[in-house]
Amino acid sequence: MLDLVDKVLIEDESLRNGLQIEKRLFSVEGKLHFIRGMESCGLRRIQVGSFVHPKWVPQMANTDELLARLEPTPGVTYTALVLNERGLERAIAAGVKHLSMSISASETHSLKNTNKTLAQARAEIVPLIERAVASGIAVRAGIQSALGCGYGGEVPLARVYEIAETYSGLGVSEINIADTAGLGNPRSVAETVAAVRKVIDPTIAISLHLHDTRGLGLANMVAGLQAGVGIFDAALAGLGGCPFVPGAAGNIATEDAVHALSALGVETGIDWRALCDLALEMETILGRRLPGRMAHVVRAT
Amino acid sequence: MLDLVDKVLIEDESLRNGLQIEKRLFSVEGKLHFIRGMESCGLRRIQVGSFVHPKWVPQMANTDELLARLEPTPGVTYTALVLNERGLERAIAAGVKHLSMSISASETHSLKNTNKTLAQARAEIVPLIERAVASGIAVRAGIQSALGCGYGGEVPLARVYEIAETYSGLGVSEINIADTAGLGNPRSVAETVAAVRKVIDPTIAISLHLHDTRGLGLANMVAGLQAGVGIFDAALAGLGGCPFVPGAAGNIATEDAVHALSALGVETGIDWRALCDLALEMETILGRRLPGRMAHVVRAT
Repeated sequence: MLDLVDKVLIEDESLRNGLQIEKRLFSVEGKLHFIRGMESCGLRRIQVGSFVHPKWVPQMANTDELLARLEPTPGVTYTALVLNERGLERAIAAGVKHLSMSISASETHSLKNTNKTLAQARAEIVPLIERAVASGIAVRAGIQSALGCGYGGEVPLARVYEIAETYSGLGVSEINIADTAGLGNPRSVAETVAAVRKVIDPTIAISLHLHDTRGLGLANMVAGLQAGVGIFDAALAGLGGCPFVPGAAGNIATEDAVHALSALGVETGIDWRALCDLALEMETILGRRLPGRMAHVVRAT
Repeated sequence: MLDLVDKVLIEDESLRNGLQIEKRLFSVEGKLHFIRGMESCGLRRIQVGSFVHPKWVPQMANTDELLARLEPTPGVTYTALVLNERGLERAIAAGVKHLSMSISASETHSLKNTNKTLAQARAEIVPLIERAVASGIAVRAGIQSALGCGYGGEVPLARVYEIAETYSGLGVSEINIADTAGLGNPRSVAETVAAVRKVIDPTIAISLHLHDTRGLGLANMVAGLQAGVGIFDAALAGLGGCPFVPGAAGNIATEDAVHALSALGVETGIDWRALCDLALEMETILGRRLPGRMAHVVRAT
């Protein structure tokens, strides 16, 4: 009955979006342990960190060292987040082959988060993407707050697809629609994906970054599947919180998303039961229960 | 893009499915307080309890007294659960106008839960429904474990629609497809609703009882909306747990479901923000955080 894509790639963001708001700092060894664990569960794209200022995001300060020590596993893509030229230089020096870059679709969010207007952010990301693409890096260009702004700023659909249109001309491999504040719903997901697809090069993949703040994470994933999206971001145990809602649920939980996809008959190549062990390990390290469901269902049954 | 029903009735089951597994016993006054609170938020159908043996479910022992003391609000339906003849007699004596009755679609679940085979359970519910209908009571007939059995029992789709077909001939007003163990997914929801609809009288409404055990509660609700379902069960703050998974999430949270419906542009007549206060009150009384999301999002923002 449901018309869904039949194969999905999951990008796990535990080590970047997940850990960047945690108080606990993870060592390079600690991060490598989770990378190896996720690979052995079948994950094929892992966002390992971000090249941002260590003063602002100390959790990501060891990203350069992590990449230097990371022996690549064939078939696995290691990606990272870059937000400015200094970061791009570090990423190039680290030999990264795949990068995420993004700006917000909300003027308010852009100003509060980066002190830049939308016009400034847009003007700055264009040469950054161009330089990365020219360096042979696959670029995934993201649109933050694409389904609503956590600060209450306006996000007209036209602004989202105009940013996508800009990205499309720059040689990016993927456009990421990010529901940073978890404000999306299945209808807005479907509408936004369709609007973006209409204006971009048909060879560019669309991915969704979904937060489960309001409990709609997996419902929005299903809407994405129905809209033909084949790449979804997730984080172990639902790490990641919400920058606008203290204590809220984070990204959709990788193990819950993979379980749901498996139940729906969508292929991921990932063993969600094995991921549950990693999710529980993450909870043990952080010392609290996280929002993910399947790890606890598996443990209790 | 999404083709959804445009109006939904929510049946709140906080006081029955929600409280029946809680250690804390609620007084008649305590239950009345929540009934009045839910009514003032706009809820129009409330399951206030069940007529089951007080020895097995002491939380429901005051259902008769509750109904005797409940001054009905015009436009609100008060319903209760009945599972046997003694319960039906009590319900008739209490003057109830609307009742839920149900059997399981899983042989294993039926045997473990009621010590009856499916054949026995089916043979016993038929005269029960007939008697209730003959007494002028609107009967909603339920199919427990319709989307999977928490004990691992088999639930072929054919068995679900055969039970629905049996109900259809008995004058019931509604058939409730219950995902007792939270094992459904959007695809199985769509398939089951379509299969049931095909065999029942077209004037009989279909409702969904969804548990969020595996995080798919709202995704399944959306699949139900797409399949044309217009009645959903829910419980404040996601009360209800899962009989098969200790500590698991319960029913879809009423305030989260209404928020999601509102975001999707589906009319419910219910104020989800006001419901959040009631959800927080329930958490305070029970002394723990419950799975519902929106009450905490509202409180934090």
